[in-house]
Amino acid sequence: MRFAGSHVLSVEQFSREDIEQIFKVADSMEPYALRKRVTRVLEGAILGNMFFEPSTRTRVSFGCAFNLLGGEVRETTGFKSSAIAKGESLYDTARVLSGYSDVICMRHPEAGSVAEFASASRVPVVNGGDGANEHPSQALLDLYTIQKEVKAKGGSMDRLRIAMIGDLKHGRTVHSLSRLLALYECLDVVLVSPGELAMPESYVENLRSAGHRVTVSSELNQSISQVDIVYSTRIQEERFSSKEEADLYRGRFRLNQAIYTKYCQPNTVIMHPLPRDSRSDANELDNDLNQNPNLAIFRQADNGVLVRMALFAMILDVVDQVDSHSRDVNWYHRRANE
Amino acid sequence: MRFAGSHVLSVEQFSREDIEQIFKVADSMEPYALRKRVTRVLEGAILGNMFFEPSTRTRVSFGCAFNLLGGEVRETTGFKSSAIAKGESLYDTARVLSGYSDVICMRHPEAGSVAEFASASRVPVVNGGDGANEHPSQALLDLYTIQKEVKAKGGSMDRLRIAMIGDLKHGRTVHSLSRLLALYECLDVVLVSPGELAMPESYVENLRSAGHRVTVSSELNQSISQVDIVYSTRIQEERFSSKEEADLYRGRFRLNQAIYTKYCQPNTVIMHPLPRDSRSDANELDNDLNQNPNLAIFRQADNGVLVRMALFAMILDVVDQVDSHSRDVNWYHRRANE
Amino acid sequence: MRFAGSHVLSVEQFSREDIEQIFKVADSMEPYALRKRVTRVLEGAILGNMFFEPSTRTRVSFGCAFNLLGGEVRETTGFKSSAIAKGESLYDTARVLSGYSDVICMRHPEAGSVAEFASASRVPVVNGGDGANEHPSQALLDLYTIQKEVKAKGGSMDRLRIAMIGDLKHGRTVHSLSRLLALYECLDVVLVSPGELAMPESYVENLRSAGHRVTVSSELNQSISQVDIVYSTRIQEERFSSKEEADLYRGRFRLNQAIYTKYCQPNTVIMHPLPRDSRSDANELDNDLNQNPNLAIFRQADNGVLVRMALFAMILDVVDQVDSHSRDVNWYHRRANE
Repeated sequence: MRFAGSHVLSVEQFSREDIEQIFKVADSMEPYALRKRVTRVLEGAILGNMFFEPSTRTRVSFGCAFNLLGGEVRETTGFKSSAIAKGESLYDTARVLSGYSDVICMRHPEAGSVAEFASASRVPVVNGGDGANEHPSQALLDLYTIQKEVKAKGGSMDRLRIAMIGDLKHGRTVHSLSRLLALYECLDVVLVSPGELAMPESYVENLRSAGHRVTVSSELNQSISQVDIVYSTRIQEERFSSKEEADLYRGRFRLNQAIYTKYCQPNTVIMHPLPRDSRSDANELDNDLNQNPNLAIFRQADNGVLVRMALFAMILDVVDQVDSHSRDVNWYHRRANE
Repeated sequence: MRFAGSHVLSVEQFSREDIEQIFKVADSMEPYALRKRVTRVLEGAILGNMFFEPSTRTRVSFGCAFNLLGGEVRETTGFKSSAIAKGESLYDTARVLSGYSDVICMRHPEAGSVAEFASASRVPVVNGGDGANEHPSQALLDLYTIQKEVKAKGGSMDRLRIAMIGDLKHGRTVHSLSRLLALYECLDVVLVSPGELAMPESYVENLRSAGHRVTVSSELNQSISQVDIVYSTRIQEERFSSKEEADLYRGRFRLNQAIYTKYCQPNTVIMHPLPRDSRSDANELDNDLNQNPNLAIFRQADNGVLVRMALFAMILDVVDQVDSHSRDVNWYHRRANE
Repeated sequence: MRFAGSHVLSVEQFSREDIEQIFKVADSMEPYALRKRVTRVLEGAILGNMFFEPSTRTRVSFGCAFNLLGGEVRETTGFKSSAIAKGESLYDTARVLSGYSDVICMRHPEAGSVAEFASASRVPVVNGGDGANEHPSQALLDLYTIQKEVKAKGGSMDRLRIAMIGDLKHGRTVHSLSRLLALYECLDVVLVSPGELAMPESYVENLRSAGHRVTVSSELNQSISQVDIVYSTRIQEERFSSKEEADLYRGRFRLNQAIYTKYCQPNTVIMHPLPRDSRSDANELDNDLNQNPNLAIFRQADNGVLVRMALFAMILDVVDQVDSHSRDVNWYHRRANE
């Protein structure tokens, strides 16, 4: 099967067909993620969840996805105490750790490190984020959410209109997402940021050369008035030289229910890669949006589990066995997707 | 069933009937905790063990209880690197994390935080300790131990005589326990502390208004001479403004075998929520008590596993299925309850 | 069965017969470690993986070994936040933690601490490294690797020729390994180190009094010319009073392909306990050795999983049941032992 034994390192590796296949598998994971059914298809398999940079929710989301398929998770978090800090090469780390599990998810603060690790690994590696570079499962879950939300409203991916808002310079999320969006047709993309935090030209060019219409703006209200999706992002404070410099931009593009009502079309979907900064000086997406049914940010997080389950099932080549290893859930479960 | 799908946030939510039901279920967990039998009733279920404040033993005890029922555990420890530190609200954290598991155990340094989290969670939440506020599973395991110990000696909960000793001002353990004790009848409660670290008046009043006899003392020896249970506690150094201030009280109420023999009745049970401070300047319960069969502190810790298994089984509504998913243990096991 | 319910605290506890039995069991674990088959023999069992000092790879290796037998792992890492830091004795910690699992693996920075812990534990304890003292599973996996490598080349343990190189004063790995080697016959042992970092006399004496030939040298090239095994080690920077002092010795005994070709016999096996320091000023084993088929360092790490599986299976007395609880692996697996 496509992806059996493959690394997942970059969105660049996916064709539109690949993505549609991944999303079809993700759809089929829903009964398990919603705890209507349990599958034990990966019982006995081990995920090495290697986080050399902290990220609670990404780590737990990957671990949970593997558990939901019946597998076990061995983890590490942090960097200082690791062998890498004692001068071990990524090559050695990969050769050793890949003897301990069936698949590895790795996050690391340095761009390119995960690909270097993967080249020495004896098992498939999923990039869980390598510095400013890539975080492919996040881009996939964003795209999966976009597709699900617009489909639910009768729309389609082709001809999609989307505004991306915030720190478009540092946000690897919007970079990777723009790469995937370029695979579709006739999109209308509005890029909203302060001039200094604009989307790097290569991503803009990639979209334009694929035939999409790209508008660049530093003004929020009009930019969100003709779109299907508003994708808001956090100021990446950790990428600035000082907190003070980041503060110059914090809270620049606040969206709340009043602005939404005044400027957006009634069905516009609001997304955010999370965490959203809810401190009063930031307030990217105001809490008064929490009751708005078009706020998709938590469905987005839930979709992350489905997409990661799909990736694991495809990499380990068990897609066709998931259902045959399943049964009904025998414990209390009330959770709906929202 | 009672508690199916419920949060466990506070001892206030329990009636005496509730407690008796929990304890009955806890009793039924003993063969599994003692590794005579294995149950797989929660195979495929996931506990989110979210510790935003470190607590090795509470975390491991909850995780172990869930494993003993056959479920999986995904964990987080620490606070600094979490999304909360990036300005995420507890509401958002709860909405996201509750998509990853079937039940959550949460510890957090701020009073009230777990209840706030629970109100946004889509799955049941167990309070694993929220700052100075509550730690309900600790209170339940303390009460469970008291009941088991007095029953083994032919006594009963009603008419129980108990001395609580130490930092009664800051110890949330004794606060919560006193709330639960108030549900019984005709108790004799002796509160032993330095005047400055006395039990807050509201707890004393709560006991008195329920018809119990409360004696306040700052002297150890006579206070322990007419009781069934001596419940000693640690000076909560972290709640004082300085180590020096805490040192004023450290080691004030030392109990050792000589004092026990001289002042206590022969069957008096000694308890402590642990960890006990065994440094020479503290020595709350001297090591020479370790051979005293009435030292119940390790049985108390073991009981924590039983009570937490009971809570999980009730919340996830599998109490009636535990035995039907069980079999004999097939590996070496020697451990007795002590 | 031998070792059922036993602690594994020191290499001193093993006879040559014991070791041969352990290695036979380790051999039988290979299909499971290579993911050709899955066994669920310890399904429902819990390993308490208690690391009071960080060590990613040892921790993950033990956890993985337990998962590969079908069991669950509950872990702790770090020391500062633990109850021990609040004045709890190792006795108390052991009494409490041993109520949570079926077997414990413990690492702790202080020599002797694991044995003290084990004496109060109600379940078997495996020493995962106690300061400068012992790390018995490392010594066993080293010896297991030596035996496997020399057998593959038609040699035998008796009459083995081995050079140990580097910081022989501080390296507990070489200390423990020398104890085990002493159990065999007619060995030729070359100890290569700066004079200040020589192997302590007691270990040398132990080898000599068992009838082995020991040569002490501070020169690399001639020392590796007549041996079956070159066992290189890291300068234990953390045991020196300053980084500067450690730097005096760093990079003193570099081995690369050119030196290997010039001085070693063609089949000489290269080992290292890992991590190897690959920084340019250290470079214990140069990366140009990575393609040398006699570089056994990663097979050595893989063997760690086999040896730890064997120890767990023997301690929990399930050796005879491993295969009967097994089945074929149903997911993608490509990994070879190298």
